[in-house]
Amino acid sequence: MRRESRARLELSLLVEPGDVRVRSLLLAAGSAQTLVGALRAGTPVGDSLPLPEAWRHAAQHLDARLGRATERAAEARLRWVAPGDSAWPVQLDDLDQVEPLQGSTGTPLGLWVRGDASPSVLAQRALAVVGARTATAYGSAQASEHAADLGDAGFTIVSGAAYGIDASAHRGALAVGAPTVAVLACGADADYPRGHASLLDRIVGTGGLVVSEQAPGAEPLRSRFLSRNRVIAALAEGTLVVEAARRSGSLNTLHWADRLGRITMGLPGPVTSAQSDGVHQAVRDGKAVLVGSSRHVMVELGVRLTDDPDAPDPDSAYDRLPLMVRRALDALSWGATASVEDVAGRAGLTTDEALAAVTVLHGRGLVSCLDGRWLLTGRADSA
Amino acid sequence: MRRESRARLELSLLVEPGDVRVRSLLLAAGSAQTLVGALRAGTPVGDSLPLPEAWRHAAQHLDARLGRATERAAEARLRWVAPGDSAWPVQLDDLDQVEPLQGSTGTPLGLWVRGDASPSVLAQRALAVVGARTATAYGSAQASEHAADLGDAGFTIVSGAAYGIDASAHRGALAVGAPTVAVLACGADADYPRGHASLLDRIVGTGGLVVSEQAPGAEPLRSRFLSRNRVIAALAEGTLVVEAARRSGSLNTLHWADRLGRITMGLPGPVTSAQSDGVHQAVRDGKAVLVGSSRHVMVELGVRLTDDPDAPDPDSAYDRLPLMVRRALDALSWGATASVEDVAGRAGLTTDEALAAVTVLHGRGLVSCLDGRWLLTGRADSA
Repeated sequence: MRRESRARLELSLLVEPGDVRVRSLLLAAGSAQTLVGALRAGTPVGDSLPLPEAWRHAAQHLDARLGRATERAAEARLRWVAPGDSAWPVQLDDLDQVEPLQGSTGTPLGLWVRGDASPSVLAQRALAVVGARTATAYGSAQASEHAADLGDAGFTIVSGAAYGIDASAHRGALAVGAPTVAVLACGADADYPRGHASLLDRIVGTGGLVVSEQAPGAEPLRSRFLSRNRVIAALAEGTLVVEAARRSGSLNTLHWADRLGRITMGLPGPVTSAQSDGVHQAVRDGKAVLVGSSRHVMVELGVRLTDDPDAPDPDSAYDRLPLMVRRALDALSWGATASVEDVAGRAGLTTDEALAAVTVLHGRGLVSCLDGRWLLTGRADSA
Repeated sequence: MRRESRARLELSLLVEPGDVRVRSLLLAAGSAQTLVGALRAGTPVGDSLPLPEAWRHAAQHLDARLGRATERAAEARLRWVAPGDSAWPVQLDDLDQVEPLQGSTGTPLGLWVRGDASPSVLAQRALAVVGARTATAYGSAQASEHAADLGDAGFTIVSGAAYGIDASAHRGALAVGAPTVAVLACGADADYPRGHASLLDRIVGTGGLVVSEQAPGAEPLRSRFLSRNRVIAALAEGTLVVEAARRSGSLNTLHWADRLGRITMGLPGPVTSAQSDGVHQAVRDGKAVLVGSSRHVMVELGVRLTDDPDAPDPDSAYDRLPLMVRRALDALSWGATASVEDVAGRAGLTTDEALAAVTVLHGRGLVSCLDGRWLLTGRADSA
C-alpha cells in the first residue's frame, strides 16, 4: 500500500469521515501522513486550525484501532482504495470542491470495498437511484424498472441499500445482470440493514460492490447517513429520486447531486401520495428535472437513442393522415351529419376529393355514415 | 345594440370565427361595418387581401342567416356581447396580439352568452381547468378538488364542458357555489355534449355562463374545438391541465395560455398512466409549472396565503427539536446501542445534557432504551 494511501486509512480511524474539518486540516497539513503525525504529536497544523481533542485522543490509540480494523476487514474481505490508487473513482474528488451541507463535505479519505470489481470502472457510467424507505408499490416498481432499463443501457446503479426504493433499485439492476453499488453509512463489513444481508451478498456476487468510507465495524449513526449521501451523489453522473416525502433523506442526496453539478431527476407520482410530495417540490424548486420514463432519464444522461423519445404515439392517427383527409376531418362535426358536398364546401375540396377523404376516415374508424351523410364518431387526437 | 357590435354579430355569421383571416381583414377594413359592407358588395379591402369566396357568397344571404340566428338566440335566451360592451371581458382582446396556432387566432367577434352574469365580472379572477375526456378516477377527483378549492378562493372556473376533466372541473365549482363558465365549440344554444344538458343548466342556474363565439345552431366542427380553446385560455389568468395524453387537445389550450403569457400549470400523476404523459411532457418542455396541490396553484396565481405552502409537515419532528436534542439524535445509531456517555462524547454534550436529550427523544418515540443503553428506532425525517 502506498504510504499516503495507508496514512489516509489511519486518518479515517481517528476522525469522522465526511466531517468538514477533515478537509480543512488535510489542506493545511498538505498530506495525510503529516496530519496523522500532528494528531499523534498533538502539534498544530496551519495557523488557526485547532485539532479536535477527540481526534488527538484517538491518535493515542491508533495502533489498537488499526489492528481491529485490519482484522475485521480481512474477515469480511474488504480492501482499502484511496485517491491515487488506480481503482479510485476520481468522480469523488469533486467533493473537495463543494460547500458543506449539514457539516459534511470533502473527498472521502478512501473507501472500504467489498467485491472484486473496480470502483473506478463501475463509476464510469453510473446512475444513482434513491428514495423513500417507506415506498409505495408504485414507487418500488418504478425504481426497479428504471434501474433495470438504465442497467441494460450500460449504467451502474448506485444506491444506499435501505429498505424501500434503494432495495428495489439494486434489485432492478441485479435482474438484468447490471453492476450495482451499495454505499453504506456504517462499515462495509456489516449487513445493514440486517434484512438485506442476502441482497448485499447478491450485489457482491454479481459484479457489484458494497462500499463505505466508514471503518469496518463503524455504526450507522444518524449523521453518517447524511455524509454517506454525498458519496452516492458524487459516484454517479445523475441522481434519480423515486418517491420522497417532504423531508426525506433522499432529497439530501438530490441536493448533493445538485451541488456537485450532477444531473438531478425526479419521478412524479399521484399528488395524493405523500411519498411523492418531496419529488414534486424538488421539481417545483428547480432542483430536479421531471422524468416520466426511463427514456427521459436516458435523454437527461445524454444516452444516444435510436428514436425520438418525444415522438407522437404510434396510434396518434391524426398526424399521419394526408393533408386533404385532415381537412375533411376538420370539417366534420360530432353533433350533426354532413353531406359530402357540405364537407367539400367547408374544407375547400372538390366533391370527389371529399368523398375519397371521408372514405379513408371511415376506414380508420373515425367517422360514421348515416343515410349517406357523415358524422365524427372516432376519438380525434387533438380536438 | 351599438352599430359596430351589431356589425360584428353579422360578420360572425358570414365568416368562420377564429379564422386567422378575419383578424387581417378587420384590421385592413378598420371596422366590422366596413368589412360587412365589402363582403356584401364584393369589393376588396386593403391592397392584397382577397375576400374568401365562401364569405362573399354567405353575405348574399346575410338577412336570412341573421333571422335564423336571432330566432334561435331568443329561444335559448342568448345575448350577444362584443368588444366595447360593458360586459365584454377585455382579457379576450389579448388574442389580437398573438401568433396563430393551427390557423386560429384573434379576439372573438363577440360571444353569445347564456346566463345572467356578466362575462367581464366573472373573468376578473378566473382559472381554466381542462384535461382529458377519457379521464381516470384520480384525474376527475383532482379536477373537482382543485376547482372547488380555487372556486372557494374566489376564482371563476372556466372549462369546455366536455366529458372527463372538464365536467369534473365545472362540478367542483358548482359544489362550492363558485361561478363557472363553459365555453362551447358549437352554438351556445346547444346542449353539447348531449349528456351534459343538465350540467349546462346547473352552470347557468348557479351564476355561471355558457358562452360561444359560434352562432346559435353552429355545429361542433373539429376545427372549432381548437379555436374554442384559445377563448378558454384567454378568459383565465392561468390554465391548469389535469391529465392529458400525449396529443390531447387540452395541451392545445395550454399552448394558447403559454402564447398569451398566462400562467400554465400541470398536475402530475403516475408515470404508468398514459393520461398523465402529456402533462409530464409539458412540464419537461417548460410549457407548464408542476403543481402538486391547490395551494401550489394559489401560489402560482399570486393568491396571498395565510401560511407558507412549503412549510414542513406538522409531523416533521426533527426540525422542531432543540439543537441539543438534535445533536444527541445525530449521535445515535440504528445498528447498535450506545450509553449516555457514548452519546455525550459523540455529540459534544455533558452527560446530564445527553441524558436529558435522550429522554426527550424517548418521549417522542424516536429512540428505545435497552438495558440502560440507547438505540434509534423511530423514523427520522431527514436521514
